[in-house]
Amino acid sequence: MNHSGRIRALRKQMREQGIESVLVTHLPDVRYLCGFTGSNATLAVTAKRAAMFTDGRYTSQAKEETQGARVTISKKSALREACAWLEQAVTTAYFDPEQTTFAALETMRDALSKGKRRGFFQPLKSAVVSKPRMVKDADELLLMEQAALLGCNLFTAVLPHIQAGVAESEIAADLEFFARSMGAEAMSFETIVASGKRSALPHGRATTAKVPGRGYVTLDFGVILKGYCSDMTRTVHMGKPGRQEQFAYDAVLKAQEAAVAAVKPGATCGEVDEAARSVLREAKLDKYFTHSTGHGVGIEIHESPRVAAEQKQVLEPGMVITIEPGIYIEGKFGIRIEDMVAVTPTGGKNLTPAPKAMIQL
Amino acid sequence: MNHSGRIRALRKQMREQGIESVLVTHLPDVRYLCGFTGSNATLAVTAKRAAMFTDGRYTSQAKEETQGARVTISKKSALREACAWLEQAVTTAYFDPEQTTFAALETMRDALSKGKRRGFFQPLKSAVVSKPRMVKDADELLLMEQAALLGCNLFTAVLPHIQAGVAESEIAADLEFFARSMGAEAMSFETIVASGKRSALPHGRATTAKVPGRGYVTLDFGVILKGYCSDMTRTVHMGKPGRQEQFAYDAVLKAQEAAVAAVKPGATCGEVDEAARSVLREAKLDKYFTHSTGHGVGIEIHESPRVAAEQKQVLEPGMVITIEPGIYIEGKFGIRIEDMVAVTPTGGKNLTPAPKAMIQL
Repeated sequence: MNHSGRIRALRKQMREQGIESVLVTHLPDVRYLCGFTGSNATLAVTAKRAAMFTDGRYTSQAKEETQGARVTISKKSALREACAWLEQAVTTAYFDPEQTTFAALETMRDALSKGKRRGFFQPLKSAVVSKPRMVKDADELLLMEQAALLGCNLFTAVLPHIQAGVAESEIAADLEFFARSMGAEAMSFETIVASGKRSALPHGRATTAKVPGRGYVTLDFGVILKGYCSDMTRTVHMGKPGRQEQFAYDAVLKAQEAAVAAVKPGATCGEVDEAARSVLREAKLDKYFTHSTGHGVGIEIHESPRVAAEQKQVLEPGMVITIEPGIYIEGKFGIRIEDMVAVTPTGGKNLTPAPKAMIQL
Repeated sequence: MNHSGRIRALRKQMREQGIESVLVTHLPDVRYLCGFTGSNATLAVTAKRAAMFTDGRYTSQAKEETQGARVTISKKSALREACAWLEQAVTTAYFDPEQTTFAALETMRDALSKGKRRGFFQPLKSAVVSKPRMVKDADELLLMEQAALLGCNLFTAVLPHIQAGVAESEIAADLEFFARSMGAEAMSFETIVASGKRSALPHGRATTAKVPGRGYVTLDFGVILKGYCSDMTRTVHMGKPGRQEQFAYDAVLKAQEAAVAAVKPGATCGEVDEAARSVLREAKLDKYFTHSTGHGVGIEIHESPRVAAEQKQVLEPGMVITIEPGIYIEGKFGIRIEDMVAVTPTGGKNLTPAPKAMIQL
């Protein structure tokens, strides 16, 4: 990973926007910029210098991982020491308003000498860290492709375990065991296995409910591989679906494929959302599509951009988004199909090559 | 769970402190107060009314889970709708400064009519939600005891799998599979398996490194059971430990037991920390004890109070804390032993009855 290049790119933006220094406290941002993966870290970047503050639990790890920033092991608070360091180096420091709590800002101000507090900290007007993170570089795209492929392999491996009478939680256990066995560091979110009527819960965590002899089973899961998240959903049917079930599946699949096809540089996120939504509207199922079409994914499972109605964000090569329309008919059933798609210079590349045609078990 | 009682207790504090209304946005707080477990929720509580806002993904689940608050399914932003609702009901609303970002506060203010923005939102001066969460009620203590016991059973189950030549990640995979099989909803944090020299990393995530024929292996893991977290650590030795290794283990165990014995109502967190630290000081190992002794645990894996040097927080019956001293000698080895301890009216109850005497494999 070219961490030094990322800090250089940040400094270029700082120069262009007249920003003297940036205080980075969001851990995924710290990881992105300097490679450190510990659970306590503050990164301070000025025009010439960069300093990463953590605590004694991470002495070895911080030395090993951190690139492009000097490491300081703080005795007390990493955040406070970073602020004190900035006070010596600059006259103003910018923070990310999306990632800084009211209480943290109080702590930051309190870490300064009394005379310097007024106006020292300013909220960033543009997302100088989280915005560049939307566009993945070649190293990141390779890791995300591997993470997504691992997800597909998990789906293949778990299919024989989806049987009537088996608890949703057992299927989740199998899936997560395969994930670990295949090298995943962790799951990227709590595995969803929602069977029968529970498939109508868009976020139905795996429970002890048993898979019925007939009905849909939705699996939504992801892994973390070398720090990058995957995310995919497939819905399979136990036994033969009824006409309504089949009609709905066909519509969701068509909507999903339409949105995947709409991914290209220059398209807006709102247009991609509309590509899925209009198919479901035509099938008179849009009122059951109660969420947005997708989201960015990377170091975090949910990142910018949002792929939702009326979102003006324009897609650029290197962005990776999920495409996951679904419908949820309370008391009956639900269906969701989700792929990860990378924006390429010429269109979209589907990173999730698992089958989407109806699978009957 | 007595959610209505919790909202009543919140209202009592609101009356005592002259607080007209509270806006709750931190999801574990929302879950604690009204039972809703979805990933998007805002709860608004006034003297007479309570309203929980979420989105269309959670229509069924919100109805099923929410107690003591009216459910509204928001078309756009749950947060903004909650603010607009509050504007109609009250003249001031308090928010938790620890859980509210600078950007969220902007959104909250922006959701109000222009004339009402000034002074409507105020930061809470005391932690009216997170502080009561420190003291667990009987229902919660029962769940936490079950979660901790599940952790102990996992440790027993995984012991035969800890063998020289096995990858740390395989051990983590086994452990997590057992967790799921025994009914855990998820792990409460990324499982730590740190073997050989890697045991000197306090937060050594399981990697593909293979367990050596000789040396320590530290396992730090926890489950989520019915929404409550467990957390435990054991360190075992492959082969026979050397004199230095044995001396260090004995010291850490003695420190851990001293801190467990120091848990009682009226003791401060700083005193509990010092009970562990002084034992390691006597053994001249305190410079290798680079973190605090423990933390509160409950709906979140890290909650108040902090069990650290000089912390004045007084222990009360119903609090549940971890006691986890450790030492980390870079390039050589590390040892950590951790239990969950509940504060009872007469002392402390260890919720983690797994063996702590040195285990040689």
